[in-house]
Amino acid sequence: MFDPYSQCATRRGLPKEKMSENGIMSRAKVLTIDTMNPTVKKVEYAVRGPIVQRAVELERELSEGMKKPFAEVIKANIGDAHAMGQQPITFFRQVLALCSYPELLSDSTFPEDAKSRACRILQSCGGNSMGAYSASQGIDSVRQDVARYIERRDGGVACDPDNIYLTTGASDGIVTMLKLLVCGEGTTRTGVMIPIPQYPLYSAALAELGAVQIDYFLNEEKCWSLDITELQRAVNEARQYCNPRALCIINPGNPTGQVQSRQCIEDVIRFAAKERLFLMADEVYQDNVYAEGCQFHSFKKVLFEMGPEYAETVELASFHSTSKCYMGECGFRGGYMEIINMDDEVKDQLTKLLSVRLCPPVPGQALMDLVVNPPQPGEPSYGSFIKERTATLSALAEKAKLTEQVLNTVQGISCNPVQGAMYSFPRITIPEKAVKEATEKGQQPDMFYCMKMLEETGICLVPGSGFGQKDGTYHFRMTILPPTDKLKILLNKVKEFHQRFTQQYS
Amino acid sequence: MFDPYSQCATRRGLPKEKMSENGIMSRAKVLTIDTMNPTVKKVEYAVRGPIVQRAVELERELSEGMKKPFAEVIKANIGDAHAMGQQPITFFRQVLALCSYPELLSDSTFPEDAKSRACRILQSCGGNSMGAYSASQGIDSVRQDVARYIERRDGGVACDPDNIYLTTGASDGIVTMLKLLVCGEGTTRTGVMIPIPQYPLYSAALAELGAVQIDYFLNEEKCWSLDITELQRAVNEARQYCNPRALCIINPGNPTGQVQSRQCIEDVIRFAAKERLFLMADEVYQDNVYAEGCQFHSFKKVLFEMGPEYAETVELASFHSTSKCYMGECGFRGGYMEIINMDDEVKDQLTKLLSVRLCPPVPGQALMDLVVNPPQPGEPSYGSFIKERTATLSALAEKAKLTEQVLNTVQGISCNPVQGAMYSFPRITIPEKAVKEATEKGQQPDMFYCMKMLEETGICLVPGSGFGQKDGTYHFRMTILPPTDKLKILLNKVKEFHQRFTQQYS
Repeated sequence: MFDPYSQCATRRGLPKEKMSENGIMSRAKVLTIDTMNPTVKKVEYAVRGPIVQRAVELERELSEGMKKPFAEVIKANIGDAHAMGQQPITFFRQVLALCSYPELLSDSTFPEDAKSRACRILQSCGGNSMGAYSASQGIDSVRQDVARYIERRDGGVACDPDNIYLTTGASDGIVTMLKLLVCGEGTTRTGVMIPIPQYPLYSAALAELGAVQIDYFLNEEKCWSLDITELQRAVNEARQYCNPRALCIINPGNPTGQVQSRQCIEDVIRFAAKERLFLMADEVYQDNVYAEGCQFHSFKKVLFEMGPEYAETVELASFHSTSKCYMGECGFRGGYMEIINMDDEVKDQLTKLLSVRLCPPVPGQALMDLVVNPPQPGEPSYGSFIKERTATLSALAEKAKLTEQVLNTVQGISCNPVQGAMYSFPRITIPEKAVKEATEKGQQPDMFYCMKMLEETGICLVPGSGFGQKDGTYHFRMTILPPTDKLKILLNKVKEFHQRFTQQYS
Repeated sequence: MFDPYSQCATRRGLPKEKMSENGIMSRAKVLTIDTMNPTVKKVEYAVRGPIVQRAVELERELSEGMKKPFAEVIKANIGDAHAMGQQPITFFRQVLALCSYPELLSDSTFPEDAKSRACRILQSCGGNSMGAYSASQGIDSVRQDVARYIERRDGGVACDPDNIYLTTGASDGIVTMLKLLVCGEGTTRTGVMIPIPQYPLYSAALAELGAVQIDYFLNEEKCWSLDITELQRAVNEARQYCNPRALCIINPGNPTGQVQSRQCIEDVIRFAAKERLFLMADEVYQDNVYAEGCQFHSFKKVLFEMGPEYAETVELASFHSTSKCYMGECGFRGGYMEIINMDDEVKDQLTKLLSVRLCPPVPGQALMDLVVNPPQPGEPSYGSFIKERTATLSALAEKAKLTEQVLNTVQGISCNPVQGAMYSFPRITIPEKAVKEATEKGQQPDMFYCMKMLEETGICLVPGSGFGQKDGTYHFRMTILPPTDKLKILLNKVKEFHQRFTQQYS
């Protein structure tokens, strides 16, 4: 009867009937939904939530030949450039191949600058191998290259490699910093201010850490801009029930795509100094700025240009990643954080904490090195690198504009300009009748909307409720990453769906 | 005066005097050692602790030309095979190069089996690129390959790919599982049983999670074997102050190198069933078994061969990694865990939790795939793969024996056989006078001993106190990874140092 060599034995246990018949089966599980970590249960992450699980199911059903009203599922839910057909930067991948298999260093088809870059990386690795652990803070030479990149980016503002920590994607750095900040109980519990709408890594991490999430609302009417009076309202209210200690900023915005002005950043820094908040600047979209008149300003640069009163006191962590911008190398999980004005003892604690996980993935560190130290003028790969980078960024700029334009032609959809990042976050009007039907189903109205769109069109978007939004407003997040041709088709399908949906529920 | 473009501005703040002179400088830090997360402060991780920091300093001093009584620092503190000169498996690195830069697929110098393996991996990646995010649980085809590997390893016991989760090294999986298990407060707080000596990831993770660490002692007199009566003692005592919910086993042992018998594993499983404990089996050294008469038995296989009473009820997570065994690819941070009999709702929570970090590094997943699906007989790379693997494992077996033999020639050092894994963990006699001097310095006696050895010989070991040991006993952990020639020199230096140290303090 029992066959350990059968697949069935391990699949989700035996059927219930069998379990109750058999006395020995009745031993209760150690770990159940009622006895597991309660903070984990509170975690939500919409970008890979139920709608994406359904999208994966639909893909499987399609591949099994099941009939659907669409030929393919388009996952516009996540900023995953390569999955959408974007090609990697040739130079980056050449260097990674050389680092993976150094015998290729004698292959004459590889350009010399790729070889010299690979040699420099390998020389910084234990035993000249990416298979060795690196220092927990990251490879020294990579951290030096990051520091020089930041100095160039910030017009010469100094950067100390000691302040650079390489990470497993930006998420890892953000969670680590939040972890350091959490303490206290009840009304002294650490509160962390996050924008609404936000990237749900923040809410998920705060839930897991048991910290208090303090919402501040971005102003949709003013192109999702950040308003200091709203920050003030939020922190004042929060002081009654927790201890606000950190302020998270996402610039360029995710999911909202706004790019902050220099003035706004100054104001935020002044606010953080006045209210004694640790600043966390999520700047992973720093190369993704499309709108005319918009420019990326790093918090670090603005902070240092405000003079010593701020530059020497305000605590700041800034995060970057290999996953976004023009390279879109999400799978390598590369990233770094720069930490300014952190207390020395805390820094030691941070280094200790990171050492438990040994080190960030070395191929991701190598890739981060290439991002901050790409081919320079005069090097053989410079021309092709610039060509590839420009092509990707121009296409993104074009798609940002296209998305805004097409969506704004639809009655009941209103889309702010996509100034930067990789997403549109349009507001949608959902008819009363649909809201009612969703509520009866126990679903958020925009989840109901997005689920219906997925079933009818194969397009996978993320409902605004997964990012947070003002009560009574509805949105979805859609990436602008599909190739232009496909994006046009997708936008038209969204348009048709919205019209159909509106008609159906009016 | 203030120059944002000077390096000094960012370095560890300004000197204290300047700070007190200047009113604006006096703003206190938000994040200090007193206001940071108290659980993080409790974390300790000896493998990269103060002794390793000093080793890094010494390396820097040597490179700056400072005179030392040694020419190089030998880091025998960590299982980092490539850093010790072990060469990667050629086939693995060829496939990784092909996956990194698929243009190489048309290069005739790469063997066909490497190409077909690379194609299979790339076809499972979004956009055929390692730069795309994978599913949070890991790439489907890799999980299928892992499942087939486990079935082969376990003589046909079934494995469902649905139970496989790819991880960022084994550490990531272990921390994630512990995280799920933690709940309750005071005397109902989750307790987790760990071996003493242990690999300090466990104590570090439990400290950070605020779980209760329950020590059970391995029996040094019986070659570090695990004794069920000791497990029983530990759990009985622990029930008075916490809620024991999990039992961690490291087999082959780290730092202790013992390999558990099949009988012992059966007994442990019975104990876990009786005491209602979730089993966590750290099996990352499963290929590292050297001693005659010893054999690796997976907990999964033994569990399933014990019949349905156990196979269908005992909850088990088993962990593996790309970092150890014959491949030693630590830097890629690849790993997997297999989860047996986990409650379905908890499994959903696990998948959700993993999704917040998006996915494990894809190059590490690719490498894990190669480890579980290496060249097969008849394929072009089979011969060289077997040759390389055998050479590494034979050398390790030889070095395990050599280490034990040489250390046991030293009066005051007594070393159990290194049956498996990558470390010796000898017991050392430290003279009273040295214990006194260490205590006066506020140092553990074996830390004092290891620090002195480092300063005098350049050899970096980890004191036994970092892993836990019976009161009044002292040990160190030393890897057996250096090349044989170097290992001989190292062992002789250890011998000489121990004799000198003993004489000095007698």
